[in-house]
Amino acid sequence: MVLKFHNMKYAPLMVFQLVLLVLYFLFAKYGGDKDVGIRGFEDTHVMIFIGFGFLMTFLKKYCYSALGFNWLLAALVIQWALLCQAFYHMKDNTIYITKKSLLEADIMSATVLITFGALLGIASGVQLLFIAIVEVAVASLNFWLAEDIFKVSDVGGSMVIHAFGAYFGLGVSLALKAKPNTADANTNNVPTVDLNGPSYISDVTAMIGSIFLWIYWPSFNSALTSSDEEYQRAVINTYLSLAAATVTTFVLSSAVSKHHGRFDMVHVQNSTLAGGVAVGAICNMHISPGGAIAIGIGAGLLSVLGYRFLTPKLASIGILDTCGVNNLHGMPGLYSGLLSVLFAALATKEKYGETDLFNIFEAMEGGRTAANQALYQFIALAVTLVLSLVSGYITGLLTKLPIFDSLKDTEKYDDEINWELP
Amino acid sequence: MVLKFHNMKYAPLMVFQLVLLVLYFLFAKYGGDKDVGIRGFEDTHVMIFIGFGFLMTFLKKYCYSALGFNWLLAALVIQWALLCQAFYHMKDNTIYITKKSLLEADIMSATVLITFGALLGIASGVQLLFIAIVEVAVASLNFWLAEDIFKVSDVGGSMVIHAFGAYFGLGVSLALKAKPNTADANTNNVPTVDLNGPSYISDVTAMIGSIFLWIYWPSFNSALTSSDEEYQRAVINTYLSLAAATVTTFVLSSAVSKHHGRFDMVHVQNSTLAGGVAVGAICNMHISPGGAIAIGIGAGLLSVLGYRFLTPKLASIGILDTCGVNNLHGMPGLYSGLLSVLFAALATKEKYGETDLFNIFEAMEGGRTAANQALYQFIALAVTLVLSLVSGYITGLLTKLPIFDSLKDTEKYDDEINWELP
Amino acid sequence: MVLKFHNMKYAPLMVFQLVLLVLYFLFAKYGGDKDVGIRGFEDTHVMIFIGFGFLMTFLKKYCYSALGFNWLLAALVIQWALLCQAFYHMKDNTIYITKKSLLEADIMSATVLITFGALLGIASGVQLLFIAIVEVAVASLNFWLAEDIFKVSDVGGSMVIHAFGAYFGLGVSLALKAKPNTADANTNNVPTVDLNGPSYISDVTAMIGSIFLWIYWPSFNSALTSSDEEYQRAVINTYLSLAAATVTTFVLSSAVSKHHGRFDMVHVQNSTLAGGVAVGAICNMHISPGGAIAIGIGAGLLSVLGYRFLTPKLASIGILDTCGVNNLHGMPGLYSGLLSVLFAALATKEKYGETDLFNIFEAMEGGRTAANQALYQFIALAVTLVLSLVSGYITGLLTKLPIFDSLKDTEKYDDEINWELP
Repeated sequence: MVLKFHNMKYAPLMVFQLVLLVLYFLFAKYGGDKDVGIRGFEDTHVMIFIGFGFLMTFLKKYCYSALGFNWLLAALVIQWALLCQAFYHMKDNTIYITKKSLLEADIMSATVLITFGALLGIASGVQLLFIAIVEVAVASLNFWLAEDIFKVSDVGGSMVIHAFGAYFGLGVSLALKAKPNTADANTNNVPTVDLNGPSYISDVTAMIGSIFLWIYWPSFNSALTSSDEEYQRAVINTYLSLAAATVTTFVLSSAVSKHHGRFDMVHVQNSTLAGGVAVGAICNMHISPGGAIAIGIGAGLLSVLGYRFLTPKLASIGILDTCGVNNLHGMPGLYSGLLSVLFAALATKEKYGETDLFNIFEAMEGGRTAANQALYQFIALAVTLVLSLVSGYITGLLTKLPIFDSLKDTEKYDDEINWELP
Repeated sequence: MVLKFHNMKYAPLMVFQLVLLVLYFLFAKYGGDKDVGIRGFEDTHVMIFIGFGFLMTFLKKYCYSALGFNWLLAALVIQWALLCQAFYHMKDNTIYITKKSLLEADIMSATVLITFGALLGIASGVQLLFIAIVEVAVASLNFWLAEDIFKVSDVGGSMVIHAFGAYFGLGVSLALKAKPNTADANTNNVPTVDLNGPSYISDVTAMIGSIFLWIYWPSFNSALTSSDEEYQRAVINTYLSLAAATVTTFVLSSAVSKHHGRFDMVHVQNSTLAGGVAVGAICNMHISPGGAIAIGIGAGLLSVLGYRFLTPKLASIGILDTCGVNNLHGMPGLYSGLLSVLFAALATKEKYGETDLFNIFEAMEGGRTAANQALYQFIALAVTLVLSLVSGYITGLLTKLPIFDSLKDTEKYDDEINWELP
Repeated sequence: MVLKFHNMKYAPLMVFQLVLLVLYFLFAKYGGDKDVGIRGFEDTHVMIFIGFGFLMTFLKKYCYSALGFNWLLAALVIQWALLCQAFYHMKDNTIYITKKSLLEADIMSATVLITFGALLGIASGVQLLFIAIVEVAVASLNFWLAEDIFKVSDVGGSMVIHAFGAYFGLGVSLALKAKPNTADANTNNVPTVDLNGPSYISDVTAMIGSIFLWIYWPSFNSALTSSDEEYQRAVINTYLSLAAATVTTFVLSSAVSKHHGRFDMVHVQNSTLAGGVAVGAICNMHISPGGAIAIGIGAGLLSVLGYRFLTPKLASIGILDTCGVNNLHGMPGLYSGLLSVLFAALATKEKYGETDLFNIFEAMEGGRTAANQALYQFIALAVTLVLSLVSGYITGLLTKLPIFDSLKDTEKYDDEINWELP
């Protein structure tokens, strides 16, 4: 037996893994029993690896890549995010790891997986890995700005995770200016089958991911709350918003269909979840159960209409978004950010009680007014939008360099290039 | 872009969602931190949305409808059940929502999904939605009778959830008097393929649902217990009953097979779960671990024999039951109810200890005797059976009205009519 | 209706189930509220029934058997293991059952499922059931030796569960001396299709199992820890080791591929998990976060190289190992055992603190030195290896007796013989 390495295209990834190894040896220690009671870690873990992974199996011949890259990217990014996020809070050059660190790393990896959704089938493995490493560094910076500098409330990460991931992805997509696969239909370079679409079974496996995301979204949104009351409110609001978004999605999907009111799996798999994003930034606030339902209805409307009308428009000007992350994470994230501006402006000691108010809006304990808090919520939203789009666009331009192994049109949406197939 | 609604068949559903919105604004408030430590919510949530949803994907061309309607019905029903159940316990016209409310709403939605199982492929979307709304109202009434008036013990809902859902469904089915699809085989109205059956892969995806239901059933049965000891007993009994029912199911499935002792996926996916239903009403009682195993063996026997001999009989007289819910939820639910009569009659302070006894049989603290408790358990069972059958039958008659969009025989068991297919 | 049993091949199984029933009636009681707060039971339950079950669905025409036998074996074994494990700790001839007992029974059932992985498609149902019953008895003995006699630390069961299950399986396989299916290619006894391989969709469903195993592995490894700090360390180390093993697996899978650096699903589904096994015996020790990553990298290397080079070698000398459990559970288990020798030798009161040290190495409280502890870790590893191989081999020889219904070559890897197929 002679061990021969036939292909070294992922050698730089191994180097990066070894760099991580060294950084952990230098800086990382156990955090004792601190934060051991943190809620929501296991549920979030399911969302990241099963939820995102299977949701992206809807393409008929890209299931292995969807599941494989989702897993690889997340396994890499959780190690990297743990360092990037802790970087801003190190004491004595030491990072103390707890279950809460693992949870936050999982949450941060969602930005990368959302971006992956936009680029599904149109970026190569090497491009995706480069994008992931850059994105986490920038997203961690943005997270730090929002949390530590602007001191905004975004407990479910609708701005700093969902909107960031979506607009970073659209930034990359804009830079790639990829033509839709079907644009080649009258050239010789044409694939015999259009792979940018589902098969019957791939839409079933995608439902595994979609439903698990839906189920555990209340755990996700409430994981970083700081009191029992705040936690329970976040769970209830997310549950109700998701339920209302789901009913609305089905109704609207049927209503905008051109074929006898049939449902569209694209809407069902995605817009149902928009209720979780839309309520994310405000689910711990006093929005009232009725408010949560109203927000969910709005999210369903926004998302289905986005899929039906906006995504084709964007594609026609060269911004591909395979999973339509703009409709699931982008616009609902902005919507949630704007709602957080509104509810911050309306927050009073009378309504919340002092403890609850200061748990949610930390800076108000130091004297910040509700109006100022609202302003900061808006600033954080704007910074998130600009930073994600610009850094995504620049990253996208970089991935067009020859070393990153761009895909030819015939290689898109196809497992063939990445996997040994049966 | 002009937004055009091509089909308004689900407009009444949107109206109902908006009515819910108004009701929540009028009556619903957060319950603070009350019941925040409730167990089993997340696990039950998986059972409702993944468990029931995927279990019903066993039909070869009804997977989208199974998953989609399961999701839509449950998302609607949890909002509606939360109000219906709280209706009987309102204080100052206010409903205080906690995680326990969400759990109970999830549990109540199981009745509708069981009924859906009986009608899988033979009722239209509009029919199903109407059925769901009526059923939850009646089931909540029955639940209130059992719990608050008769003060019976049914911690796993074997009577009030499983039997109710199954016999409501059979009531509807009787009213529909649907002919089995194959009955048309010698007319022109014949489908080219018989869709009322599985494909190889649809039976695999159904196993996702079945196994998740099995895994989390101990959490489901024990969720509403009121002490650690009672909780742990419920978990242990459910675990053992399920395990024994599973072994029994495999043995019997092979034994009644006509082809060299082969297993039948119908039995494996369903009768394995009968152990969870059968022990549901009594899992918190002192039935002994051996008793739990004996009950599970009985459940496996009852359920497999039901599938093998009873379901075809019922179908031949016009009572279709696509998933065989009578064998998984109906008869095992009755069996559990009868066992609860028995074990209530045998309950003594010496055996249970005072605290445990009064935790389980609330009314005995007020002086009710064990014999009387047994009588009330029987009354609740009888009321459940009659109320579910009658209300199901009436609801079924109503859904035959033209506005409810009944399915033609050629449209049955077919996603085509409801979904944009690849 | 006359009930006729057409085939009684599983009658002995029913007898065994009835024996279990009697044993439970004689010996089993509830454990009150003891151990009610045990962590990780539900997550481990998912690993056993969904994780192992779906991981083994990768064969194109053995999905029903993989899921069905996994379920049947585990449902039988958890009842049996609960007795076998408690046998050594009975008080007054009574077994007190708690959630911890259920968890330990689930964990013990993993040995059988690992063995099943080695024999997937080449052993009959009756053979598998016999193997399972014997294996649990022997594995419980080995478990007792390791824990109570040698007093070793193996919190994640890398030695006593993973290595034991794998080498028991290889022992059986050696005794069966099954020829690979393709060896008949030039006889008349040839199947028209080679069934020992995946289809596109079967590799997707296998990922459900693989990813759920990966997700909940931190819960599995940490479930039996005895303090919050130890628990959290076990979670962190397992999380990091798995992440590093995953990255390494992808890199190496591409590097050893002969086709343009394509990934191999066999590696991705299995070697990613080797990081969980490799860190199992030591995850509660002070190995440092960097150490966990280093161990994970080693596990990925070991496992992928094993699949690429060792498995074909073993097959060529007649030791079939369908799932390659040697590369996922066997060698990584030995590796973990050896690491436990090393880390036990390095354990000091200064490094661990007294409480932590004595929590992990119970016998050191009684004066055992670190060097002696290391020696005992080695002895337990050696005993595990020898006992599993020898008892597996003998069991394998016994299953060649005619009563056990061996498979013909044409019946291998085929659901046809066990299931009613659509």
